[in-house]
Amino acid sequence: MAERIARDANEAFSELKTLSNEQRSQALVAIHDGLKTHKEAILAANKIDMENAVENNLSSALVKRLDLSAGDKFDAMLQGILDVAELPDPVGKITLARKIDEGLNLYRITAPLGVLLIIFESRPEVIANITALAIKSGNSAILKGGKESYQTFKAMSDIVNSTLQTETQVPAAAILLVQSREDVSNLLSQDKYIDLVIPRGSNALVRNIKDNTKIPVLGHADGICHAYVDVSADVLKANRILVDSKTNYCAGCNAIETLLINKDVPGDSITEILKSLTDAKVKLHVTLDLRQYTTTLPQDLVVDAQDADFGHEYLSFDIAVKLVDSVDAAIKHINEHSSKHTETIITEDKESAERFLKGIDSAGVYWNCSTRFADGFRYGFGTEVGISTNKIHARGPVGLEGLMSYQYQLRGNGHIASEYLGAGGSKTFVHEDLDINKVDL
Amino acid sequence: MAERIARDANEAFSELKTLSNEQRSQALVAIHDGLKTHKEAILAANKIDMENAVENNLSSALVKRLDLSAGDKFDAMLQGILDVAELPDPVGKITLARKIDEGLNLYRITAPLGVLLIIFESRPEVIANITALAIKSGNSAILKGGKESYQTFKAMSDIVNSTLQTETQVPAAAILLVQSREDVSNLLSQDKYIDLVIPRGSNALVRNIKDNTKIPVLGHADGICHAYVDVSADVLKANRILVDSKTNYCAGCNAIETLLINKDVPGDSITEILKSLTDAKVKLHVTLDLRQYTTTLPQDLVVDAQDADFGHEYLSFDIAVKLVDSVDAAIKHINEHSSKHTETIITEDKESAERFLKGIDSAGVYWNCSTRFADGFRYGFGTEVGISTNKIHARGPVGLEGLMSYQYQLRGNGHIASEYLGAGGSKTFVHEDLDINKVDL
Repeated sequence: MAERIARDANEAFSELKTLSNEQRSQALVAIHDGLKTHKEAILAANKIDMENAVENNLSSALVKRLDLSAGDKFDAMLQGILDVAELPDPVGKITLARKIDEGLNLYRITAPLGVLLIIFESRPEVIANITALAIKSGNSAILKGGKESYQTFKAMSDIVNSTLQTETQVPAAAILLVQSREDVSNLLSQDKYIDLVIPRGSNALVRNIKDNTKIPVLGHADGICHAYVDVSADVLKANRILVDSKTNYCAGCNAIETLLINKDVPGDSITEILKSLTDAKVKLHVTLDLRQYTTTLPQDLVVDAQDADFGHEYLSFDIAVKLVDSVDAAIKHINEHSSKHTETIITEDKESAERFLKGIDSAGVYWNCSTRFADGFRYGFGTEVGISTNKIHARGPVGLEGLMSYQYQLRGNGHIASEYLGAGGSKTFVHEDLDINKVDL
Repeated sequence: MAERIARDANEAFSELKTLSNEQRSQALVAIHDGLKTHKEAILAANKIDMENAVENNLSSALVKRLDLSAGDKFDAMLQGILDVAELPDPVGKITLARKIDEGLNLYRITAPLGVLLIIFESRPEVIANITALAIKSGNSAILKGGKESYQTFKAMSDIVNSTLQTETQVPAAAILLVQSREDVSNLLSQDKYIDLVIPRGSNALVRNIKDNTKIPVLGHADGICHAYVDVSADVLKANRILVDSKTNYCAGCNAIETLLINKDVPGDSITEILKSLTDAKVKLHVTLDLRQYTTTLPQDLVVDAQDADFGHEYLSFDIAVKLVDSVDAAIKHINEHSSKHTETIITEDKESAERFLKGIDSAGVYWNCSTRFADGFRYGFGTEVGISTNKIHARGPVGLEGLMSYQYQLRGNGHIASEYLGAGGSKTFVHEDLDINKVDL
C-alpha cells in the first residue's frame, strides 16, 4: 500500500515536472475555485472534527487550531493559494551558463525535487498551503494529517483530487492523502520514491521521524535561540528586543531561551535589563554571579540556574541568564549550546556585531533586532513550509526555493570526452562563463 | 576518542569560520611549500606503502593508484593546492538582500557547512586535494585514508598539521587524521559535531556508510547512466557518443550501462549503431526484438538480456540494449531504472531533445554529447570532492560551491516583531529587494 502510494506520486511527478508555469498556476486557481465552491461542505466536515475534539476532551488551544470557520481563516487560506499561483516560476531558472567548448554548453537549471512527504498535526489549512507550494514548484506531495482533523482533511483532499483530475493538466496522484498510522511508517521506508520528508508539528514528531527514515528530513526539532547583550548595548533597545524575543509568542521556535550578558555591562544596567523581563512576567534562571543584580526584583521570578538550563528549550515564560567575559565567549557558548536556529546580538559597536555575525554558526544571525523575525512571511517568502535548522540544503525559513533542486544540462553536437585532455585526447576546455540573462535555449 | 576528534574539529571550525580569504589562501600556500620542502620524505614513506602493497599481493591497478612518484603526479598535486588558493572566495557572498522595513535589512550570505568527514580509499593525493578545498571553503575536515596508504598519509598529514600550527592562522585541528577502523564507525555517530560525510571509493564503501550514519552523506553509490537514440538521431554522431560513453573509462560512474533505441530507427541504422559498439569490443545484452538486427555481428558479443540487466551497473565492456516506442517511453524507462546520475539523448530533433531534457529526473541531462563529461574538471569547477546523485543540497560534480551553506543576517536598530501585522501589531513589511551588487555592509 505505502509502496503503491509512493510509486504513484513518483509517476505523477514525472508528468508534473514537464508542465509549464501556466499549467501549474492554472491548477492552483482551479483548486481555489473548487474549495471556494464547496466551502459549506468543508466547514460542515470541520464542525464534526471540532465536535469530536470537544467530546474527546482535547485542549481548547487544539480545538482553536482545528477551527476553519473562525474569523477570516477560510478566506485567508483561499487567498494564500492565489498568492502562491502568482509568485514567479521557480522551475527552469538558469543559475549558471558556461561554454565548455565550441558548440558544447553547460547550464545549471532549477528543477523540482520530486516527491515530498508532509506530515502535519492539527491545522487543516496546511493542506491548501502545501498543495499550492508543491504544485507551483513542480513537486508531488503525499500528505498525512492528524486524526483530529480527519473529516476536514478528507473533504478538502477529495475536492483537490477531483479538481486536479477534471479541470487541470496536473495528474491527480500529484497530491495524495494518507490517513492510517501504519501507512506513515511504511512510507518512511520508501526512499526509492520519496525525496524529502517535511514534518510540521511537535519536537517529538520530528525526532521520531528523523530516527525512523533514511529519506532526508527538512525541519527542526528544537529552537534554542540566544540573545547576547554586549558591553556597548543600548539598554532601552536591549529591553525592547529581549521582551519581544521572549514573550511575543513563547511557544514559537524563534523565541529566545537563553540570555547572555557581557560581565562589563554596568550593574544598574544589568538590573534594568532583567527587570524589563520580570516586568513582563518572565521567570529568570540565573547563575550565582548574577544574584547581586536581582535583589530588587520579585523573588518569585528569580531562581538559580542549573547547568541543564543552558541549551534547554522552555517554550514558556522562562529564560536562562548568564554572564560572559566577551563577545568571543558568547560566540563559543552559543555555538556549543544553540540548535543553530537564530541568535541575536544587541550592541552599538559595529566591530563586536560583525564578529558575532561572522562567528555564529546558526541559520539566522541578527544584530539589534528580535529573533521573532525568523519566519517566512516576515522574510518576504510569501508562505513557508517550515523552518530548517539543517545545514545541508535549505536553511532558515523555507519557501519555494527550498523545494527546488537543480540539474546540469549539457548541449553538444556529437562531443565526446576522449578527444580532451585527461580522458585520452589533447583538446583543452574553453570554460568561459556566459551571461545567464542572455541565454536563449 | 571519536567524540574528542569530532569536537576538536568543530571547535577549530568556529575559529576557521572567522578567518579572511587571505588568511585561508595563505595557509594553502604554506601547505604547498611544506609538502614541496618535504617531497623526499613523503616519497620515501610512499615507497614503504608500495612495497607493503606488493608484499600483500594487492592488484597492480591498486599499486599504481598508490604511487605518488609516477610521472608528474606529485607536482600536479602541489599545483592543485595553489589552483584552489587562487579561486574566488566562496565565503560571504551575498545571494539575497532585502529591505524588510526602514532600518531592518535581510541578507542571505554564503557560509561554510562546518565539519566534513572524508573517507577515501587508496589515492594518497586526495589528502592534498581535500585539505585545499576544505580550508578554502572555511570547513574543518576529518580525513580517514585506506590502510594501504598509511605511511604516505601519515607523512603528509604530519606536515600539514605542523605547517598549520606554526605558519598560519588556521587552527591545526581544522584538518585531522584518523586511522583505525573503529574510529570511523564511532565518528559516524557524531552527528552533533559532524555536518557532512563524503565517501570516496567503491559502491560497497558508500552503501555501508549510508546505512550506518544519521549524518548527511554526499556522493553516489551507483552510476547507472543511459543513452537514448531517438528516431531523428544522426547515426555517425550516435556511434561516436555511444562508444565514448561506454568505453572511454568503463569503470567510471559516468559510463553508460543501458542503451535505449527508438523502434522507428531504420533497421540498418540500428545494426550500424550496435556494430560500432561490438567493433569497440563491447558485449551487447539485447532484448529479443533486437536479435533481427544482430545477425551480422560477432555472436560472442551478443547475448540475451534479462530483466535484471536494466538498471544494472556493469562497470565493464557490457551494455544492456532495448527498443522503446517513443521519447516518452525512454523518459519513463530511465526515470524508473537510472541512478539519477547522467543521461543523454542523441537526436537532431530539438522538440524531442527539449522533452527529454525537461522530463528526465537526473543530475545531468545531456543532448548530443557523451555522458563522460559529467566531471568537475570538465565542468570547469577546478577540482571536485565527488559526484552527487542526491537531490538534496549539491547535485552532480561537486566543487567548492557544494561545500557551502548560507546564513540569513538580519540587521536592525531595535526592531521587534510585535509591532508588525501577524505578531500583534499593525506595521506592514516593505519587502523591497536591494541590488546585491550595491550592498555595503
